[in-house]
Order: sequence, then C-alpha cells, then structure tokens
Amino acid sequence: MSAPWNRRHILSLDDFTPPEYDIVLQTANSFREVLTRRTKRVPTLQGQVVTNLFFEPSTRTRSSFELAAKRLSADILNFSPGQSSLSKGETILDTAKTYLAMGTDMMVIRHREAGVPHAIAHEMDRLNVKVGILNAGDGQHEHPSQALLDLFTIGTLLDDQNPRISLLKGKKIVIVGDILHSRVARSNIWSLTAGGADLHLAGPPTLLPKWFGEWFKDCPSLPSNTPSVPPPPQLHWSIESALAGADFVMTLRLQKERMTDHLLPSLREYHQQFGLTRRRIQLCKPAVKVLHPGPVNRGVEISSDLMDDPNFSLVSQQVTSGVAVRMALLYLMGSHLMNC
Amino acid sequence: MSAPWNRRHILSLDDFTPPEYDIVLQTANSFREVLTRRTKRVPTLQGQVVTNLFFEPSTRTRSSFELAAKRLSADILNFSPGQSSLSKGETILDTAKTYLAMGTDMMVIRHREAGVPHAIAHEMDRLNVKVGILNAGDGQHEHPSQALLDLFTIGTLLDDQNPRISLLKGKKIVIVGDILHSRVARSNIWSLTAGGADLHLAGPPTLLPKWFGEWFKDCPSLPSNTPSVPPPPQLHWSIESALAGADFVMTLRLQKERMTDHLLPSLREYHQQFGLTRRRIQLCKPAVKVLHPGPVNRGVEISSDLMDDPNFSLVSQQVTSGVAVRMALLYLMGSHLMNC
Amino acid sequence: MSAPWNRRHILSLDDFTPPEYDIVLQTANSFREVLTRRTKRVPTLQGQVVTNLFFEPSTRTRSSFELAAKRLSADILNFSPGQSSLSKGETILDTAKTYLAMGTDMMVIRHREAGVPHAIAHEMDRLNVKVGILNAGDGQHEHPSQALLDLFTIGTLLDDQNPRISLLKGKKIVIVGDILHSRVARSNIWSLTAGGADLHLAGPPTLLPKWFGEWFKDCPSLPSNTPSVPPPPQLHWSIESALAGADFVMTLRLQKERMTDHLLPSLREYHQQFGLTRRRIQLCKPAVKVLHPGPVNRGVEISSDLMDDPNFSLVSQQVTSGVAVRMALLYLMGSHLMNC
Repeated sequence: MSAPWNRRHILSLDDFTPPEYDIVLQTANSFREVLTRRTKRVPTLQGQVVTNLFFEPSTRTRSSFELAAKRLSADILNFSPGQSSLSKGETILDTAKTYLAMGTDMMVIRHREAGVPHAIAHEMDRLNVKVGILNAGDGQHEHPSQALLDLFTIGTLLDDQNPRISLLKGKKIVIVGDILHSRVARSNIWSLTAGGADLHLAGPPTLLPKWFGEWFKDCPSLPSNTPSVPPPPQLHWSIESALAGADFVMTLRLQKERMTDHLLPSLREYHQQFGLTRRRIQLCKPAVKVLHPGPVNRGVEISSDLMDDPNFSLVSQQVTSGVAVRMALLYLMGSHLMNC
Repeated sequence: MSAPWNRRHILSLDDFTPPEYDIVLQTANSFREVLTRRTKRVPTLQGQVVTNLFFEPSTRTRSSFELAAKRLSADILNFSPGQSSLSKGETILDTAKTYLAMGTDMMVIRHREAGVPHAIAHEMDRLNVKVGILNAGDGQHEHPSQALLDLFTIGTLLDDQNPRISLLKGKKIVIVGDILHSRVARSNIWSLTAGGADLHLAGPPTLLPKWFGEWFKDCPSLPSNTPSVPPPPQLHWSIESALAGADFVMTLRLQKERMTDHLLPSLREYHQQFGLTRRRIQLCKPAVKVLHPGPVNRGVEISSDLMDDPNFSLVSQQVTSGVAVRMALLYLMGSHLMNC
Repeated sequence: MSAPWNRRHILSLDDFTPPEYDIVLQTANSFREVLTRRTKRVPTLQGQVVTNLFFEPSTRTRSSFELAAKRLSADILNFSPGQSSLSKGETILDTAKTYLAMGTDMMVIRHREAGVPHAIAHEMDRLNVKVGILNAGDGQHEHPSQALLDLFTIGTLLDDQNPRISLLKGKKIVIVGDILHSRVARSNIWSLTAGGADLHLAGPPTLLPKWFGEWFKDCPSLPSNTPSVPPPPQLHWSIESALAGADFVMTLRLQKERMTDHLLPSLREYHQQFGLTRRRIQLCKPAVKVLHPGPVNRGVEISSDLMDDPNFSLVSQQVTSGVAVRMALLYLMGSHLMNC
C-alpha cells in the first residue's frame, strides 16, 4: 500500500493525486477477487448506512452502488425524488440533513445541477458531522466513480495483477462525442492526464468548442497535484484525425436534448460524422479497445456490431468494474470515517 | 426425489414434463415447512444476485419474488422502468446485459410483449454466460410461476404431505373468463392437461374464439412430453354448462381494456353472464374450490361474498403458495447454475 | 419495567395510558443505546416481515420505518401505490390481505383518508389473523409515531437516562399552526395532555376554529384512561399571547393547499402573523426548545436562522428519535404477536 487515504468526500477528480488513484485501483482489485468467491460479501461496513440520494433518477448507477454497498454489508436507504418531500417544498440541504439525522454514514448523491454534492459536503463539514459525500454525477460537472471505473477497466487490461495509474503513460486515448456537456468526459480528462496519457478529444464544434482546451490549462489545482504540468488534451473536429494510432477510444453518450437545442442536425448525421464504426476503428492500433459509459444509443455513438464485438468492446467489463470500484470507494470513505 | 432438474431457464410450461412438475411441487412443499419456522431463512442462495426486471410494473408479483429471494438469502436488485435507462433509448437486451455484467445470477422478467424473456434467455445462451431467466409474465403468452402456484395450491389441498401432478387425473377443472388474452390461462392449460385433468374453458365468444381449441391440438411439443396425448380442453360459451360437477373453478381477471376494445359491452353484463356467484357455484360439486390469480375485480369475475367465503375461496392460499413456489423455482435454477 | 404491553395495533393515541407511554419511552431509550454501537443491529425480529403500505407517498417516514425494521433484522417489503394493483381496481383491504397471505407480520400503513389503518386492523381481527397494524398517518386524523417521537425527544431532553411521561407535568407547550387539519397536532394533543402538560394551541381562526376545544372535552375515552380529567388545551388566535413563558413550541407544517382552499391569504401573511421568529421566541422561557415534524417550509412556519440554531431547534433530534421510537414500536408489537 502506498500513501494512506485522506479524503472524507469524493466530489471531483480535479485534485486527485497519482497515489490516490493507485489506492483506489489496488483496493478495487482486491474486491474484484472477493466478487469471484462463492460468498461475495465482506462484513466491512456492517451497521453503517449508505443513503442513495438520487435527485436525478438512474437505475443503472443506483443499482451499481446498491450492490457495492450490499457486498460490504452496509444498510442501504434509497431516496427517490418522485415520492419525496421535495415536492413538498423542502430544500435539498434539509433532505440531506434529515437522512444524516436518521444515521446515514455515507451519501451517494446525483443531481442535475452541478455543485449540489459539493454544497451538501460543505454544509456537513460546517456542521462538523461525520458523514462522507460521494458525487454520483452532478449536472455537466463531474462523475468521479465513472472515470475511476474506466481507469480500472483500462488498468486491469494493461496489468491484471497490478493496475496503476502510471500504466497510462504515453497511451493514446481518444474521447469522442459531446465533450462540452459531459460530466463523464470532464472526470476522465482529470484522471487520464494525471496518468500521463496522450489525450485527444474529438467532436463537432458545437459540442467541443475551441476554448475548451484553454479551460483545462487554467485549472488552478493541476500544477501542485501532478508531478509536472501535463500537456493539455489535443482537440479534433473530425473523428478520423483523432483516431490515428489510438490505444483506447471512449465514446460518450449523446443526449437527445442536443437536437432540440439545435446543437446537432440529427442522430443520423452525428453517426455519419462521429459514429465509431468498423471501418473507422481500422485507423487505430490493432489492439485498440472501445469504452462507453452507457446506456448506449446503438447506431449513433457506435455501430451495433462493433459494440457487441468482444475483440474491441469493453462495455461489459466497465459495468463489472463499476461494482468493484464503488466497493473500493465506499470502503475507503468508510474506513476514513471510522478512524477520524 | 424423482429425475434431476435440468433447466437453466423457466420460460414456458408448454414442454414441462410430469417429473418436472413433481420436482417443483416437492421442493415447494419443503419450503412451505421452512416458512412456518421461527427463522424463515435458509442460506441456499447466499451471495447470489436475483434481479427483478419488471418492465411492466407489478407490486404484487414483484413482492412475492422479492420475499422468496430474501428467504433464500439472495441479494436482490430491482429494476423499475419509470426510473430507467429505457427512456434514454437503451434496448431491453442491453439493460439485461448491464445487470448481467453487474453480477446477476438470475433474472425475473416481466414485459408487456410476449417473447421478451425468451429473447433475453436466447441472447444469454448465445453469449454462453451462466445466468437463469424466469418469465414472470410476458404479454398474453405465459406466466409459469402463477400456473405452478395454482397447481401447488390444488396439489396440497388434495394431498398435504405429497402434492404431485398425478392427483389432477380426472378432476374437472373449469377456467372462466378472458381466455384469449390471458397468460395465466395459457400456462394453466399446459400444466392441467399434463396432469390429465378434465379441463373446460368458458367465456364469451369474443374472449374465447372457436379456433382456440384447435390451437392447443397443433402445439408440437405436447405428444413427446406427456405419456399420452391428453384430450383438448372443452369449450363453453355459457358458464352454467361448464360448471356442472366441477372440482375446481379458476376465474380470470378481466382487463378493463377489453371494454374499450369493444370485446365486451360492460362489466355489469359480463358479471351477469360469466360472473361466479353463490347461485352458480351450486352447479359444481359440493366441495368445489375457487381460484383467482388476483387482483380481483369484486362483483365482476366473482361476487364479493363468494370470494371471502373460506369454504370456497383459495385466493389467500394462492398468495401464500406463491412465496413457496417461487422459492422452489429460484432454488432449482440456482442449484442448476452452480452445478453446471 | 412497568405494566406489560398489551396492544396488537398502534392506531391512535386517544386511549394510550401513562404506563403505555412509559414503556415506549423506556424501550426507545434502550434502542437509542443500540444505535450508538459499532454494530447497530439486534436480531429481535429476524424472519419477521414488516410491510410498508404507503398509499400516500412519503420518503422520509418510510425510510425511518425501513431503517428501524432493518436494525431489528426484519425483512421489509415496500408497497408503493404508483406501481400498484390499486390502479387495477383492487380494494385496499384486498391489497392488505395479499401482503398478509405472503407472510407479513406487521403492516405500517399511511393513507390520505382518515380511518384506513383502523379499517384494515378491524378486518384482520375479524379474520382472527396474527398481524399488527401501525398507523403511519391517516388523513387529518392521527400520526401516533410522530407524537411519540416528539414525546421521546422532549423526554430525553428533560431526563436523558429516564425519559417518562410524568416529566411533562406543568410544562407549558404551545402548538402553532394549522391545528384543524393536522394529524400530528391531534396525536400530540393526546400524549401531551396525558402527561399533564399545560397545553396551548395557536393559529388563525380558519385553522383553529372556536369549537376545537370542545371537541377535546367530548372525547369519550379520556376520563377512564387518565388519572384525572386533564384541563383542555387553551386556544389562542395570536401567537404572541400563546408563547408567553413557553417551555416548548411545536410548529406545524403548513400545507400549501390551505391557500387554494382560501383558508389563508398567503404564505407571507401567515409568516407575519404566526411564523416563529427570533423576536417572538424571546417571549418564551430562555431555555425554550422548538420542534417541527418536517419537512419544513423555511421562512413560513419558522424563520430559517431559528430553525438552524442548535440552541433552540430540536428538528435533528426529532429525526434521530424517530428511528429509536419506531424500533421500539415494532419491537413491542412484534413481541406481543409472538407471545399471543
């Protein structure tokens, strides 16, 4: 084990250090082993309460966290907005405080507005209460556990026994799609550059504006947390130029709302210009692998046959990695809470 | 114990053999005993994940499967369509594959379209993955666990210690109602004829067309799976002619949609013509028993006082049987998965 | 321990006796200790099934009962009306009987109509089945567990080691708000007068009509259950006159519907006339404490800063008390069921 874990909350990856990434990867790898056993449960979080506060509904991510928490023997409470006090005028902070007062130890929070998990964590710290907040997706801002499971999927592919951030060094990784509005892209940009990957972003100018590269360089937290300032990701407005020699391609989910926002003419046109196809994948390295955070719009971001081809697609592995990585995150946060 | 259990999936009863029915009945009977104990839980499926994929909502059936899975110490994930990725354009197969990748061992699937559980099972087999699929109701096709709990309810009534399919031989059983659109009727027709019951179907011609009897005879799987070709069920377009001398009457739930489809004039008229009443029940054998899969439209399919009369109604026993039978099905599928 | 517990159902507080209140308070206090342990779970209700039948949705109260049941090792089924058989025409009694037949030992019931939990309990007793019914809020009638957690919050504040109903004697307690429509107020009126508190009610005449005091005196169950007939609560149509020298102030949630019912001009006007503010709290005793059942409309029933001031607000403690009190109620009901 490298450095100890010192975070109460997991809100963003913008200030994660390489040793922190490595702790997550190593812990997730040990849980991956637990998940192959006959009895897949460890008593680590027995008696602790994990509350899923999913203000924005998501069955997939919530199920993944729920299963991770169950594997750690935690008790789980699910808050769903449809049946909620929110419609009765309660503030989000008051909802969080109510679940805190019931005995919640960790809150997994998803909200359509950026910054909500941070605001709740800030308030909890101000009240000086022992509770950990995990951002499970906030607006267009970040989705740390998704980027960490992507990292774990890549890391275990490169070294099954010892996944670590330094394995990314020099790997050409391309993120394709709606970069501007994607919290998945944003979190991945931090982890991939922290690992020294050769990062390329590709998308139409409406979804990947020219200034996006500048935004990255201006981020104040970078220099102090990475050994040396990493080169900013390179931008492409054509998928072909981006794919050349790629080791990994991350395709992003296209939100249908982009059409009504007039940022895209049609799904068909998007697929013609930026869809990953069997023909285009030939531009990459022969051993290239494809990731997608799901749910996939088949025939839009990626052609259906390519997505189902186990020679290329890591989509299933990502979902499996998700449970191990989320177990690791809840375990690390829970252990930190108990020791402080 | 008779022959071993050799099914990975439970999708339909159309090819169930008498020995298979007997294994289910005997296993359910042993779990019925477990359910009377102070501690009603057995560790059989500890660490296994049962996922309820209820694309068509149903609290009653989902709760029954959930409780059955809990009694076997399984972990349960609930997928509910309202909060789902489906509204985000994901295909049903991709939803199933996502839950598979999370670590699901068995999926309990309900869908308003016939054939969805089969399609998912087919895809899982093609992928060569170890997961069992249980059809919890697909469109107007089948609802195997309902017919099996009906069979168990009848079987334990006839022989409390040793329920078996051969007990049905020669018993006159009448199914009344919307036969054409009922998945419950369809599954029951297979199990009851496999047991050699004297089966009668009754309903208005719009809900029980003349050709329905022919459909049964043409089913290719029957001859090889039953010792001898059973006689096809007899059709009645009046409830009185059907009830004469009956041992059991199964009333089907009437869907309100049949009215808007102009297949029925009104609920009142339906009750007058096909509702089971205290007067009509006199046509049956004195010890006749009545079943209904629920939820009941009181005063439509059956008069309220008859449904509440414990001398006739088996409705409560059916619900109780449901938990034991579903434990048996999950247990048999889970054991088969572990041994193959 | 005082007298033994002799209730199968907890439906209303109108006939609760002081010894019964004391059993609840003492049991809740012992569970409060359990909740501070590393392993917060006791095996008391292992194998028993607690079903939450929340016909009126409520995440907050349902979560509190769910966590209480989990802490007692019970299995929990959640019935939610959105996905229910109710939309399919099933009666409420049939829904309850279905969950009974599945094996439910205790039902926690919330419904928008007064009397529903009583009707279900009545039917269960008529059927002579062993199941306990807990009223988790029925229309404008009662919400016993809320009043009991309020009592426990006040009781432990007055004597941390030995909370008991007699501690209320002579304490001036003011309930402010929409008394007429509040099930919380109604349940609290019974418990607080049973303890001999000096009870005052304050609200605008539309929400606290003149006849309300008479209603209380006419209640037939009071004289026999309390050592002496307690004085009826005093009514105030101005908050200032009510607050003078108060020990505790209970603010009630204002339903927005009151505006559309034309019982109130506006939220702003309500706050000006009856909102609890830092200025008005000065009228009370210096050590006065404020309660609110939640969810709070900040700036309506109470000013935001006052609600967040730990010197005055007991709102968090109420939520925490809720889990311990609900554990106590489920424990007492469950033990009674097992012994009868």
